[in-house]
Amino acid sequence: MQKPSDPTIACLLICCPDRPGIVAGVSMFFFQLGANILDASQHSTDPREGLFFMRMEIQLEVPDRAQLEHSFQQQVATPLAMEWHIHYSDQRKRMAIMVSSYDHCLMELLWRWRSGELAVDIPLVISNHTRLEKECSTLNIPFHYLPVNAENKTAQEQATIRLLQEHQVDFTVLARYMQILSPHFVGLYPQRIINIHHSFLPAFAGARPYLNAYTRGVKLIGATAHYVTNELDEGPIIEQDVARVSHKHSVDDLVMLGRDIERQVLSRAIKAHIENRVIVHGNKTIIF
Amino acid sequence: MQKPSDPTIACLLICCPDRPGIVAGVSMFFFQLGANILDASQHSTDPREGLFFMRMEIQLEVPDRAQLEHSFQQQVATPLAMEWHIHYSDQRKRMAIMVSSYDHCLMELLWRWRSGELAVDIPLVISNHTRLEKECSTLNIPFHYLPVNAENKTAQEQATIRLLQEHQVDFTVLARYMQILSPHFVGLYPQRIINIHHSFLPAFAGARPYLNAYTRGVKLIGATAHYVTNELDEGPIIEQDVARVSHKHSVDDLVMLGRDIERQVLSRAIKAHIENRVIVHGNKTIIF
Amino acid sequence: MQKPSDPTIACLLICCPDRPGIVAGVSMFFFQLGANILDASQHSTDPREGLFFMRMEIQLEVPDRAQLEHSFQQQVATPLAMEWHIHYSDQRKRMAIMVSSYDHCLMELLWRWRSGELAVDIPLVISNHTRLEKECSTLNIPFHYLPVNAENKTAQEQATIRLLQEHQVDFTVLARYMQILSPHFVGLYPQRIINIHHSFLPAFAGARPYLNAYTRGVKLIGATAHYVTNELDEGPIIEQDVARVSHKHSVDDLVMLGRDIERQVLSRAIKAHIENRVIVHGNKTIIF
Amino acid sequence: MQKPSDPTIACLLICCPDRPGIVAGVSMFFFQLGANILDASQHSTDPREGLFFMRMEIQLEVPDRAQLEHSFQQQVATPLAMEWHIHYSDQRKRMAIMVSSYDHCLMELLWRWRSGELAVDIPLVISNHTRLEKECSTLNIPFHYLPVNAENKTAQEQATIRLLQEHQVDFTVLARYMQILSPHFVGLYPQRIINIHHSFLPAFAGARPYLNAYTRGVKLIGATAHYVTNELDEGPIIEQDVARVSHKHSVDDLVMLGRDIERQVLSRAIKAHIENRVIVHGNKTIIF
Repeated sequence: MQKPSDPTIACLLICCPDRPGIVAGVSMFFFQLGANILDASQHSTDPREGLFFMRMEIQLEVPDRAQLEHSFQQQVATPLAMEWHIHYSDQRKRMAIMVSSYDHCLMELLWRWRSGELAVDIPLVISNHTRLEKECSTLNIPFHYLPVNAENKTAQEQATIRLLQEHQVDFTVLARYMQILSPHFVGLYPQRIINIHHSFLPAFAGARPYLNAYTRGVKLIGATAHYVTNELDEGPIIEQDVARVSHKHSVDDLVMLGRDIERQVLSRAIKAHIENRVIVHGNKTIIF
Repeated sequence: MQKPSDPTIACLLICCPDRPGIVAGVSMFFFQLGANILDASQHSTDPREGLFFMRMEIQLEVPDRAQLEHSFQQQVATPLAMEWHIHYSDQRKRMAIMVSSYDHCLMELLWRWRSGELAVDIPLVISNHTRLEKECSTLNIPFHYLPVNAENKTAQEQATIRLLQEHQVDFTVLARYMQILSPHFVGLYPQRIINIHHSFLPAFAGARPYLNAYTRGVKLIGATAHYVTNELDEGPIIEQDVARVSHKHSVDDLVMLGRDIERQVLSRAIKAHIENRVIVHGNKTIIF
Repeated sequence: MQKPSDPTIACLLICCPDRPGIVAGVSMFFFQLGANILDASQHSTDPREGLFFMRMEIQLEVPDRAQLEHSFQQQVATPLAMEWHIHYSDQRKRMAIMVSSYDHCLMELLWRWRSGELAVDIPLVISNHTRLEKECSTLNIPFHYLPVNAENKTAQEQATIRLLQEHQVDFTVLARYMQILSPHFVGLYPQRIINIHHSFLPAFAGARPYLNAYTRGVKLIGATAHYVTNELDEGPIIEQDVARVSHKHSVDDLVMLGRDIERQVLSRAIKAHIENRVIVHGNKTIIF
Repeated sequence: MQKPSDPTIACLLICCPDRPGIVAGVSMFFFQLGANILDASQHSTDPREGLFFMRMEIQLEVPDRAQLEHSFQQQVATPLAMEWHIHYSDQRKRMAIMVSSYDHCLMELLWRWRSGELAVDIPLVISNHTRLEKECSTLNIPFHYLPVNAENKTAQEQATIRLLQEHQVDFTVLARYMQILSPHFVGLYPQRIINIHHSFLPAFAGARPYLNAYTRGVKLIGATAHYVTNELDEGPIIEQDVARVSHKHSVDDLVMLGRDIERQVLSRAIKAHIENRVIVHGNKTIIF
């Protein structure tokens, strides 16, 4: 497991056409710098003509990060036609939370953040309701109230985007935020907005999934965390889980049971995102 | 748990408008006959104006079953506007299995039947392929080969229905039978045809669910056992379950993992059906 | 599901030697008072010479509860040699929480209480550390700091008992309280102290279960909620659950993953206790 | 996923003291031979002074396997103080099954073997009962009946060992074989005898685990597949799983439900073993 605050630890994510020599090339590059590979996972869509993905955790003294990255580009990435990112563990991600009035996902994230499980900074929470202000102020997290209606929707979204930019937010979590984001907003943060949907997608996309699950008479209800795209509830799935229900459960019971699944699923998805374990490929995710 | 072969054990299923006095009326009726109530479960859709459902396992010497049922109708069922059925444990249900060429569901059912877990008679297996004939003949179960193509479909379905009627089949299991039954066939056996669909419905209804699950990138795959209605994959759900998958799994892997879920889900659904634990209400099931 | 604040709803728990006529007797008694049976579950250890248990939710106008209970005793309970309790939904249980310094179980319970999931009053929290005082005071729950060491242990336990009595506590939850209670304390609250143990008992009873699970190399870790008896970690189990782990997980990872299981398991156990769904029989529980 | 019959695919397992350069050394060695790394997983007990483990699937034309292995030893393994094994996919493992009279594990393994899920040869089944002979002969698997009693135990074990040696068995599965093997036998096949125990170890080791689980009143029952050592039920755990039970389940019900868990857990453990995904370290397993 990643120790997030150690400046000598970095996480490298790569994607390139599969061919012999990738692991050798990458590992030799870092070995020559005296690095130790702490963990490595790889995936190939097809050894012949497919794409190769790898996540590598490296322990390494890096006197000059720009220099390191420049060398890596020249010696490894360019020859292998590689896309890559490197994340240093001392650079904590900055996570914004957007929420409406349900508190369970927000409370779960704040508790995990406070307990050290989620190694992020939370520079702000944005809500279209005032209800959860105290939960944030108690923890000294700035709370921004941006109510949304048909008339001010565009303006408020602009205000939201300004806030995210001012606070240099890396990614945003929709912790049961009940407004649909515009394509403009989504386009600014590709694979950097995580939503929790309260069904096991693709079943019960859209509004009122618990009511629809109740009406259909399913024996399992679920929740899905996914990256937001412009197709509602169609983005790449990061994590899902389910719980067993029966004829005894009313819609209210499903809502209550579902809260527990939502909290777990969203937390796991965010943890994977923070630890740089997620690579999006097409409309699917690789979770290392 | 029901001891299926004991002639003194019966299982009563009832449905009537909810109102005070139902449990008292039913239990007093049987108490006066010297019966012991072994188990009872009840469900009400709404105590005010709703429907009341109950399953009761009774131990009782019944010298004359027709007389018992006549009395129950007059003294209890008619006054309470009740629909009801009584099943005696010494009347084993007769289960037909229809299968194409995948063997896993058939083999699972035969193994559970042979081990005594499924307390049914299996008078015949019907298949549109010859591949699984030996599996049946080894266990002395008559195997009927009824190949289906565009031209003979109606005739073969008629032949199928005749076989089911000749063998006095109580219910039919589609253990990965890859033909769609006609409305006529389905109409003859309401809530008496159980299908296993290889997805967590309502997600991935229709053809190729594992391929579609793979393409969508879900993190859970599932299976659903349901009663067959004329809406494809829309009938009342009896049982569902899921298994966790990842980006590492190919479509073939999903098919392989899915087999284990299908076997479990179908077995549990059939067990519930055999033990008279399933009541269909609208398009949903109550599983006692 | 029980609507906890409705004064016309009561929950009856009974235990008596199994014999014909119990359900008839109980249901007839309530029918004659105009009651509606909202839900009923029963269990028999053996129809012949066994014990019969039943939980019944009843809707009933009760002008005089003492009178009702007197009649029930005379007309039903005495003839059937029945032990029984009746709980009225407008009588909220009073739950004390004892906790040391881990916050996750306490936070979970307070959140569920605040959200209305746990229909109890929480008159006080008792801790041998000061760390979680603010979490309680924020919600206006009195927090009592009673530090324990080898010398003051008996005196502090006396003080604890006095507090529980003064506050008329119905049951106490040990939400990761790291002191062993004396037989005297336990004896005062039989089946009314719920502990969460951080393993799937009977595996890894006693101290350091996560370390022991790590050392043994199990592939599942778990948590167990049970009633406290004088045999450490040997009391009747109310609820258990597990999560999958692998060689990748350090002891710290197990502790972190285990927190999620502990929170869920303890919450479900308390919910069952509050809703009067638990009957203890010998050293086992019946969970209706 | 490994394609087991492709002669160009090999699986390398290594263990050595952790230090920089291991991945680079191994991957460079194979790159220079023109190999493609299909999959790789690694684990370190501690980057400082710990042990490093790796599993690598390689695609490679190997004209001379002895020559390849000799080069690897000299150029990579000796400098890094490495223990290692290489398995070629065209070398199917030879699996013996030992069984007493319960059929569920044997049937499950034979079905999975027949369906191609378990890519092994099964040269023989050995049993101390005759009951399952037909199940083997139907599939043309030699069945050896070696009844065991107090007097012939040592002789029959000698006969068993001779059979395993004659048939060049790579590993043996105890598919509910109810005899304890001698230290001599176990010593001949370290980490090559897989047992299924019908409880979630370390709970309920030894005899009658379902009865003991029933008596203790657990809410989950389980099964454990492990390598056999001379400490009964104490060997390295490969796989475990559980199922939920309640007060309604008799011991017979637990036995029946447990069969499903046993079948699943044993199958998964064997699959991991066959695919060379298991490394034993001390008394624990690393499952890649």
